[in-house]
Amino acid sequence: MATTTEKIFSEFKEHSVAEFFKKNQQMLGFSGKTRSLTTIVHEYVTNSLDACEEAGILPEVTVKIEEIDKDAGKYRVISEDNGPGIPEKHLGKALGQMLAGTKFHRYCQQRGQQGIGASGCTMYAQITTGKPVKVVSRYDSKRISCEISIDLKTNSPSISNLVKEDGSFGSGVRIEAEIADVKYDKSSFGVYEYVRRTALANPHLQITLLAPDGEKAVFPRSSDKIPEKPMIVQPHPLGISTNDLIDFAHRERECIRVSSFLQERFARFSAAKVDELRQMIPDVDFNKKPSELQWHEAEKLIKAIQNPNVKWIAPSTDSVKPIGKDQIEKSLANILAPQFVVVTERSPKIFKGGIPFMVEAAIAYGGGAGRKAADTASSEVIRYANRAPLLFDNSGCAISEAVKEIDWKHYKLKNFEEEPISIFVNISSVYVPYTSAGKQAISNEDEITQEIKNAIMEAARDLQRYLSGINREKERGERKKAILRYVTQLSKDLPELAGKGKPTELEKKLVHLIETKYSSQIENGEDDDEGENGNGNSKKNGKIEEDEDINE
Amino acid sequence: MATTTEKIFSEFKEHSVAEFFKKNQQMLGFSGKTRSLTTIVHEYVTNSLDACEEAGILPEVTVKIEEIDKDAGKYRVISEDNGPGIPEKHLGKALGQMLAGTKFHRYCQQRGQQGIGASGCTMYAQITTGKPVKVVSRYDSKRISCEISIDLKTNSPSISNLVKEDGSFGSGVRIEAEIADVKYDKSSFGVYEYVRRTALANPHLQITLLAPDGEKAVFPRSSDKIPEKPMIVQPHPLGISTNDLIDFAHRERECIRVSSFLQERFARFSAAKVDELRQMIPDVDFNKKPSELQWHEAEKLIKAIQNPNVKWIAPSTDSVKPIGKDQIEKSLANILAPQFVVVTERSPKIFKGGIPFMVEAAIAYGGGAGRKAADTASSEVIRYANRAPLLFDNSGCAISEAVKEIDWKHYKLKNFEEEPISIFVNISSVYVPYTSAGKQAISNEDEITQEIKNAIMEAARDLQRYLSGINREKERGERKKAILRYVTQLSKDLPELAGKGKPTELEKKLVHLIETKYSSQIENGEDDDEGENGNGNSKKNGKIEEDEDINE
Repeated sequence: MATTTEKIFSEFKEHSVAEFFKKNQQMLGFSGKTRSLTTIVHEYVTNSLDACEEAGILPEVTVKIEEIDKDAGKYRVISEDNGPGIPEKHLGKALGQMLAGTKFHRYCQQRGQQGIGASGCTMYAQITTGKPVKVVSRYDSKRISCEISIDLKTNSPSISNLVKEDGSFGSGVRIEAEIADVKYDKSSFGVYEYVRRTALANPHLQITLLAPDGEKAVFPRSSDKIPEKPMIVQPHPLGISTNDLIDFAHRERECIRVSSFLQERFARFSAAKVDELRQMIPDVDFNKKPSELQWHEAEKLIKAIQNPNVKWIAPSTDSVKPIGKDQIEKSLANILAPQFVVVTERSPKIFKGGIPFMVEAAIAYGGGAGRKAADTASSEVIRYANRAPLLFDNSGCAISEAVKEIDWKHYKLKNFEEEPISIFVNISSVYVPYTSAGKQAISNEDEITQEIKNAIMEAARDLQRYLSGINREKERGERKKAILRYVTQLSKDLPELAGKGKPTELEKKLVHLIETKYSSQIENGEDDDEGENGNGNSKKNGKIEEDEDINE
Repeated sequence: MATTTEKIFSEFKEHSVAEFFKKNQQMLGFSGKTRSLTTIVHEYVTNSLDACEEAGILPEVTVKIEEIDKDAGKYRVISEDNGPGIPEKHLGKALGQMLAGTKFHRYCQQRGQQGIGASGCTMYAQITTGKPVKVVSRYDSKRISCEISIDLKTNSPSISNLVKEDGSFGSGVRIEAEIADVKYDKSSFGVYEYVRRTALANPHLQITLLAPDGEKAVFPRSSDKIPEKPMIVQPHPLGISTNDLIDFAHRERECIRVSSFLQERFARFSAAKVDELRQMIPDVDFNKKPSELQWHEAEKLIKAIQNPNVKWIAPSTDSVKPIGKDQIEKSLANILAPQFVVVTERSPKIFKGGIPFMVEAAIAYGGGAGRKAADTASSEVIRYANRAPLLFDNSGCAISEAVKEIDWKHYKLKNFEEEPISIFVNISSVYVPYTSAGKQAISNEDEITQEIKNAIMEAARDLQRYLSGINREKERGERKKAILRYVTQLSKDLPELAGKGKPTELEKKLVHLIETKYSSQIENGEDDDEGENGNGNSKKNGKIEEDEDINE
């Protein structure tokens, strides 16, 4: 007979991770109709870009969204790329199993990391329309078509209607998912904005969006440079915890001693370093098998590694692949057409002691920069992690925090919120610390937030100079205008007073004098306006007289 | 020979959910040193409260935090309760396996839902100090002690040093976890605040916190009423999706027809309702086996269920167990000792069509209400879900949103941020839609946010009346003061003018006249002050003369 205590616990059940994420869809970005649709496009486009990068292909992606039943929020999303394709035997894992991915365990900078994304979309299709996703994968003179769904109870893929063809089909993947409970709109959280921002940070990408209203948006590539292939790097000693060290050591199959294991598996770990540590912690046996390393030994090792007296060469930052200054400039000019752009190129930095990351920041001002709504400009912060746009959860993100902490008044922006300004920030790292599996906000780590702030402020100083230039020039222009206002009258009066010369000649000389003293130095944007005032011909004077008329 | 495409995908690996959460600790609330410690206390206290509630025990919990190495952020957390204990065979699942829980699949209002919490703490101890957690479970004349850790690769518990004893030990659980990379502080995110807020929302709980600095904080219970046992309820038809229906139907083992299945497994589904639906969708066979129900049929069924012409009795709200108006009032008075408290008792509402929830809101004003820092008061929002305090992620939470959307000026609060006010909100539901597994913010569902807003505004109207009373009384008091100011002089002058009576007698009469006209109506807080002005004796007049002196 079961006691009360036993009864309470009698219902213990194990659940698959697929069931867990079905119940916690919002963790994967499936919350809200607009966001759910954007999440699906994000997952597919991200996978396409990662695959193309790894295969060294210039990516060409088409996203088509078809309306099936607007009231039920039912749409068909079709995403097609020219990537390497997915081999038959991996299709199930790639699209029908959670936590089965190529990248989870690698130290390598890619957009996707967890191996959930595309399978999450399959789950979402399944639980909203009951339909499997349709996939066509072309590679190695093969074409594989099938339908994939997830058995949620076991988190395993189930594949049906498999068709294999041989022939010359090129390469690429086409995924078709029928989903419901979503909404297509052109808000700042919608698919259009997502695609636009993806294009902004990926100048090598050609992306086309076919919207349900029949509109076709093509974002052509502005660069033919294929980004370098991501590298798999060894972790830096300063970036690992005791637990990581134990994990690596107990998994070690080749090195037979702790000493060689440290040198082989970690970056910047020389024989000299091993000797240095040996002297510091003589009670740790560096000759023992890595698999026999105990927690307390690993702990001592890590403490010694982190001892400030032990100097380490900073981690190689080869693994960090930024977009590049020129690329960002081209891209912003291409898509935003602002009056002013500045991109800051900072060197890679380290967070948590051993994880390299790099911040690229850009400021676009005037012209098409900023958010436009009903004729009034407002600022916008365009956030990226490894070139993937972050549209949601902006309040909890290190980038938003950094922007908020900056005193924009110092940079000649009186009311930051209402300026025509776009702040562009991209963080590149083999390990981006997201705040959730939805991957929409970067965790507020001190080192990262500070570096973002520095990068933006560096760009802001250039903006300040630009705006000061405009302000100086404006002031100069206004002073000039004020003086010129009296020229006509003065040139009429002076001859009378002095009794010589013709008014028009004197006027010309006076204007020339003023023009020389208050010469225009503006080289961009606003100089059209100022230029008109700076030519000192009769047309000019006509205008000035008009001004005077108005004043009278 | 592997092609490029095959090589790219050759590294597909499956990962356990434990590995996933190790890599995504922040999803479980392990982000930041202070928060990580609070998370651990939260998980243990929550489990204790749930277990006591289910067993009908008045909970008594002691949390002790010992400092081991402050620099390394190493602490020992010991949590002990008088709950029902955990049976031996369930210890491993309860503390050493993720997604194995008693509550994941039940429709039942409890604090814990996912079956991750306590196992997440075991994982955190393990990866920061390498130590298993130590558990002592007493139940049914047994005492079981052991150490538990998780095999992260397989997400399975490993138990060591098991000791079983027979005897009279009472019941309860004691867990001891050694963790690092945490910090104990008294900030609004720290353990102390967490415990205080837990006490606020659980008047039946006696909780003691032994802090590492030796301080002992006891929050005694203010009520001996054991909350009712949580109920397991059938889902309401309006709260399920097509996918849910398919899930339930395909799991069905007893009912042999769809018609009986609907009546048996869902709330408010009468035979008459089945007939009504039959007529609406004649092409769906209600006699077929539930396990053979197809998606398109389930979709039709759900559409018919949700048809506005089909009237449903609202779901039973028995499952929703609020704290209770009296209990909240007692608790707030007990712990905050404010000048004014109002609690709103609203009826349960429904979200997503079929999930009952209930909002309790309270406002405490003046006295110990609000956040105190360096002599200036400021407002605080105390958020709860099923009585568990939500300390983090406040910006994304429906409760914070609701508070923000309220125009507090309408309620006589000029600057909400700087008022000595505590807004208390508790949401009770069998299914609380959290925004993440960290369970610190409630998803911004329209129905929920609106109901929270209504509940707070209802309370705010009472606050407004209270504050209006104070304001009216203040105005009245000031007018009285102004008139009284002239009394002394007037009573001296009048006899001279009229030629009769003694000044003191006239003064008394005048004061009496004024007192009667401007009688004090204040009954709380501020009336001490006003009372002094309202007695009209010589002491009073002395004070008024002083005022006059100052004015001269």
